[in-house]
Amino acid sequence: MTDAATNMRLKLPIVCFILQIILIILFGVLVQYDHDTDAKLWHKGNHSSDYENDFYYRYPSFQDVHVMIFIGFGFLMTFLQRYGFSSVGFNFLIAAFSLQWATLMQGFVHGLHGGKIHIGVENMINADFCTGSVLISFGAVLGKTSPVQLLVMAIFEVTLFAVNEFVLLSVLGAKDAGGSMTIHTFGAYFGLMVTRVLYRPNLNKSKHRNGSVYHSDLFAMIGTIYLWMFWPSFNSAITAHGDDQHRTAMNTYYSLAACTLSTYGMSALTAHDGKLDMVHIQNAALAGGVAAGTAGEMMLTPYGSMIVGFLAGIISVLGFKYLSPILEKKLKIQDTCGVHNLHGMPGVLGAIVGAITAAVATADVYGGGMKDVFPDVASGEIGASFQGAMQAASLAVTLGMALLGGLIVGFILKLPVFGAPSDSICYEDNIYWEVPGEEGHEDQLTAVHTEEAEKLN
Amino acid sequence: MTDAATNMRLKLPIVCFILQIILIILFGVLVQYDHDTDAKLWHKGNHSSDYENDFYYRYPSFQDVHVMIFIGFGFLMTFLQRYGFSSVGFNFLIAAFSLQWATLMQGFVHGLHGGKIHIGVENMINADFCTGSVLISFGAVLGKTSPVQLLVMAIFEVTLFAVNEFVLLSVLGAKDAGGSMTIHTFGAYFGLMVTRVLYRPNLNKSKHRNGSVYHSDLFAMIGTIYLWMFWPSFNSAITAHGDDQHRTAMNTYYSLAACTLSTYGMSALTAHDGKLDMVHIQNAALAGGVAAGTAGEMMLTPYGSMIVGFLAGIISVLGFKYLSPILEKKLKIQDTCGVHNLHGMPGVLGAIVGAITAAVATADVYGGGMKDVFPDVASGEIGASFQGAMQAASLAVTLGMALLGGLIVGFILKLPVFGAPSDSICYEDNIYWEVPGEEGHEDQLTAVHTEEAEKLN
Amino acid sequence: MTDAATNMRLKLPIVCFILQIILIILFGVLVQYDHDTDAKLWHKGNHSSDYENDFYYRYPSFQDVHVMIFIGFGFLMTFLQRYGFSSVGFNFLIAAFSLQWATLMQGFVHGLHGGKIHIGVENMINADFCTGSVLISFGAVLGKTSPVQLLVMAIFEVTLFAVNEFVLLSVLGAKDAGGSMTIHTFGAYFGLMVTRVLYRPNLNKSKHRNGSVYHSDLFAMIGTIYLWMFWPSFNSAITAHGDDQHRTAMNTYYSLAACTLSTYGMSALTAHDGKLDMVHIQNAALAGGVAAGTAGEMMLTPYGSMIVGFLAGIISVLGFKYLSPILEKKLKIQDTCGVHNLHGMPGVLGAIVGAITAAVATADVYGGGMKDVFPDVASGEIGASFQGAMQAASLAVTLGMALLGGLIVGFILKLPVFGAPSDSICYEDNIYWEVPGEEGHEDQLTAVHTEEAEKLN
Repeated sequence: MTDAATNMRLKLPIVCFILQIILIILFGVLVQYDHDTDAKLWHKGNHSSDYENDFYYRYPSFQDVHVMIFIGFGFLMTFLQRYGFSSVGFNFLIAAFSLQWATLMQGFVHGLHGGKIHIGVENMINADFCTGSVLISFGAVLGKTSPVQLLVMAIFEVTLFAVNEFVLLSVLGAKDAGGSMTIHTFGAYFGLMVTRVLYRPNLNKSKHRNGSVYHSDLFAMIGTIYLWMFWPSFNSAITAHGDDQHRTAMNTYYSLAACTLSTYGMSALTAHDGKLDMVHIQNAALAGGVAAGTAGEMMLTPYGSMIVGFLAGIISVLGFKYLSPILEKKLKIQDTCGVHNLHGMPGVLGAIVGAITAAVATADVYGGGMKDVFPDVASGEIGASFQGAMQAASLAVTLGMALLGGLIVGFILKLPVFGAPSDSICYEDNIYWEVPGEEGHEDQLTAVHTEEAEKLN
Repeated sequence: MTDAATNMRLKLPIVCFILQIILIILFGVLVQYDHDTDAKLWHKGNHSSDYENDFYYRYPSFQDVHVMIFIGFGFLMTFLQRYGFSSVGFNFLIAAFSLQWATLMQGFVHGLHGGKIHIGVENMINADFCTGSVLISFGAVLGKTSPVQLLVMAIFEVTLFAVNEFVLLSVLGAKDAGGSMTIHTFGAYFGLMVTRVLYRPNLNKSKHRNGSVYHSDLFAMIGTIYLWMFWPSFNSAITAHGDDQHRTAMNTYYSLAACTLSTYGMSALTAHDGKLDMVHIQNAALAGGVAAGTAGEMMLTPYGSMIVGFLAGIISVLGFKYLSPILEKKLKIQDTCGVHNLHGMPGVLGAIVGAITAAVATADVYGGGMKDVFPDVASGEIGASFQGAMQAASLAVTLGMALLGGLIVGFILKLPVFGAPSDSICYEDNIYWEVPGEEGHEDQLTAVHTEEAEKLN
Repeated sequence: MTDAATNMRLKLPIVCFILQIILIILFGVLVQYDHDTDAKLWHKGNHSSDYENDFYYRYPSFQDVHVMIFIGFGFLMTFLQRYGFSSVGFNFLIAAFSLQWATLMQGFVHGLHGGKIHIGVENMINADFCTGSVLISFGAVLGKTSPVQLLVMAIFEVTLFAVNEFVLLSVLGAKDAGGSMTIHTFGAYFGLMVTRVLYRPNLNKSKHRNGSVYHSDLFAMIGTIYLWMFWPSFNSAITAHGDDQHRTAMNTYYSLAACTLSTYGMSALTAHDGKLDMVHIQNAALAGGVAAGTAGEMMLTPYGSMIVGFLAGIISVLGFKYLSPILEKKLKIQDTCGVHNLHGMPGVLGAIVGAITAAVATADVYGGGMKDVFPDVASGEIGASFQGAMQAASLAVTLGMALLGGLIVGFILKLPVFGAPSDSICYEDNIYWEVPGEEGHEDQLTAVHTEEAEKLN
């Protein structure tokens, strides 16, 4: 009745328990409350008010980001007709693992304090950000991987994410508050390379399940709309306090609005009979948030943000319509959610916009705020054009790291021990979940699924 | 297979691109960061702390309002069985346009600074508020209009909204923080007049689709509950800092709770066999938020708020049960979502409550807080009763503007170029969207829809 | 066509109107704005900034809690195939009543100010907390009770909740910010005793509806994920400002993440063929939030929080798998949602963890922050071990109160006047709601339901 190869009875528990116990031990040895979360440290010395605690500056943004990670990504992927449990459920699992692992990995590379990692709300946001990157990669392999494969992918991807982030922000001195490069470009190209390595020549055996039904598209819209609404919080969550957070949120707001109009326009223009395509609306309308990820905190101006969003929407729809089929046929990249169109190209666009915006920054425009946005430029250490060059170099580093990392991890995931589904049962919840029937025709459907499953044995 | 008249292949892209390009140009010429979002301005001079940035006072409220606009309104309208894509999708499109256009229109009428519109988080909230008004009107014409018609409606409605809001708040000196008048009354009566002008005598040809199914009602409840939960944030989003925001949120909280009980009571009392009617629960339970929109920031007292909510729920259910059928038969007003019952009558109730509460305001009750709530009364310029009279005058102005505006815009929308659906294919996603089938019977359903569509050609 | 016994035409309106009118009268007589919400009081004297208003410290947390109460609990219970309207709808009704009634009951026991209850945002949070407890009990009796029964249950449960909370926090001096005891343990055991008293020997007649379908499980996941995401806000909502709120949120974040991994591991280990069981994921993954409810604000350390969450997930899955069937067969406890596994046992675990963590508290660890977490210990009035003992005593008191209260209220609810459904029509929306058909087979389904209903008459 169930395929032995995909049976998770021992594999998943072993992986979950071992990982969690390692996490607990490492947290026990290495992690401490930071100044703002520790009872003794916070009450030591004289701070004028509890309000200065970073909690009040960051926690509302954190919660919005948290919703994007768990509801946004989770439900966006429920568009598949028979993969809703896995989309939300595996998203939930790998995110819960990744945020813990990311706390450690980011803590390591960003510097220990007396051998300890000090954590507070900003670490929680950064951990969620890193998790977002893993979930983007998940979108590329959606429907074709077991939960154990996904956890293994997360172990490596989180680690590499932390290294890449460290190189960009600390070595190259790049700015990337909303993660056009660190999160979106990295996550997309990593995932695309993994799915390339995991290429399935006979995936068309599962083709009839690789599509949406009416209600699954509505569930997916929950994910889309939450991502869209809270993207201003995402891009501004870890920028400097004050005008920086404020400006970043506003730039992203207008970028997304403009992107939505160009997405609708392009969808009607390119789709069949002038009808709108849900795939475009669910995905391309979000590209404006991705593309404002690097420059959002800069003095991009509202109309500059709108231009960026406008272009992102166009590029993204064109990608879904024309590029994805080519990638699949010519390059053998089976990108289930089209992450190349939502995160890949718009992420690269965002990186380029960031490099240009940084290169043209002047003291006349930024005034005293320069020290928040470009501290190295403000201190006179480097010029704006050098900052721009470092931004561009960061994009190149990110692409290299993502592709190389994805290549290696892809081959690791090919090991036959992780319980991947066979080509004919991809995009199917029934492999990893107890699935109830449909109302009104439960028996009938259950029968069908049982029959299908039995045929596989 | 598709009706040429409703084909959006050229119409929608042209409208989307032209509008967005105009918006970008106007933003480029006219819009600048305000003091709290500009890097240079914020860091000029001496402010004591980044915390004084308006971002921290307003942004959490903004995000709640944002959720109401995109999830709340969008999903509330998914109750129709075959119009979920359009409900969420067109809501998304016209909101994304309206918030940009509203930024400009509200900026114009509320005063330029050296020829420029200065924007920050409060402008984002006000833009979302104006958008809410357009979405209320959308509810009245839901299922009977093309996306191009909706965008054209939004162009005019946003403009008139800004004018009406300016007359109320700046000329008449009225208070209306939660928009009982500016948002709800205006949006409802504007939309009702539009749908009156667009009257379709043969709409019963689409009657079989003008209703809910089990799951569509559950999706709609997502919208209802989000609107209900975040209404305290909506009403308090732009009130004065401190006690005003606090009090407004609390008044709205209790008003909504009381409204919910009277809605359930009235629904069981009036509906068939004592069974609850989802239409009432989805809509009337929200009337308490609408009705607390004007007086919510005043010293309405908690029990006063509860009385207002209690009455609003009763009026709203009675409207759905008895008034809506009359409006349709006698006045030829086909109000798909019943916005007259949720926004129209409760909005008028809220305006009246606001006028009375203002008229009885005394220094004894408001103390030093009078200057925040009624600045003109606090300065001695006018008396409380005059304030009350101005509130009442504001209601009259709003009704006049809305009805006149709706009349003119209704006739504009009648122009045959906008791609409205014919009477027999209203409330149908298939006209404007690529619609997938239903799980388990895809082929069958697709066949039916194809057949239907073919019959129309 | 409809069973006279379950007809709500008069019962529900009478109860709703009488309760709401009593609430309005009592609010009118007893309730006033507090210092932070009253226009006069807030502007009296000199406070340095509007930012010190408690609104800005608490309101974002309140809104997260509010989402948990209305979306979280409401949608979590939509897993039943034919009870979605009732799950969300009755949740909505009894929550709207309970939060008003709780404001009064909590105001009474926590002390009047000159004969008046003074309210602000903290009261709103506490009212929502008390409501949460009622909704937990609702989970135990889900599908087997009329809305009138639920309102009657809420009247008594809210009252007893307030008394128990007063005894714990004010008499025994216990700490329980996230309510492991006051909310979860109390709500669970109260509800379990009620459902025991309401035992239905012939409930298997409704067995075919006591389960999920594919889409109902996805709706339920909306509830699960929202509860999971916002639990850090729940546990930290009423802790002291500054490091306390910050630390509590972070502890809960890591507890939940660890709980999720152990839940997935245990689910695959115990469920059929190694497949994951949605019931476990929807519920047990939340146990980490419950179990961190008492100790979350203490210096539990991140890895301590993770251990707690890890154990909670294991216990909860084991409860669903092995204990629930025994409770039903041997103890005749029909616990629809398995609240014993999600709230009962994890609540007790949380109470024990809290007692131990309190007992080992030292000035060395807490420093100046001791006065926020354990004021009586900080003042030297009691020792830490005595605090621990009081925590343990609080658990015993809570269990006693809940079981005794549930016993009495259960017998009250057995009175035949409240319109409970008969054994063969449990878990069925059609009894209390006008239910539309399903798309594509409306007539067929309606026919079936009519037939069923007619057979009952």
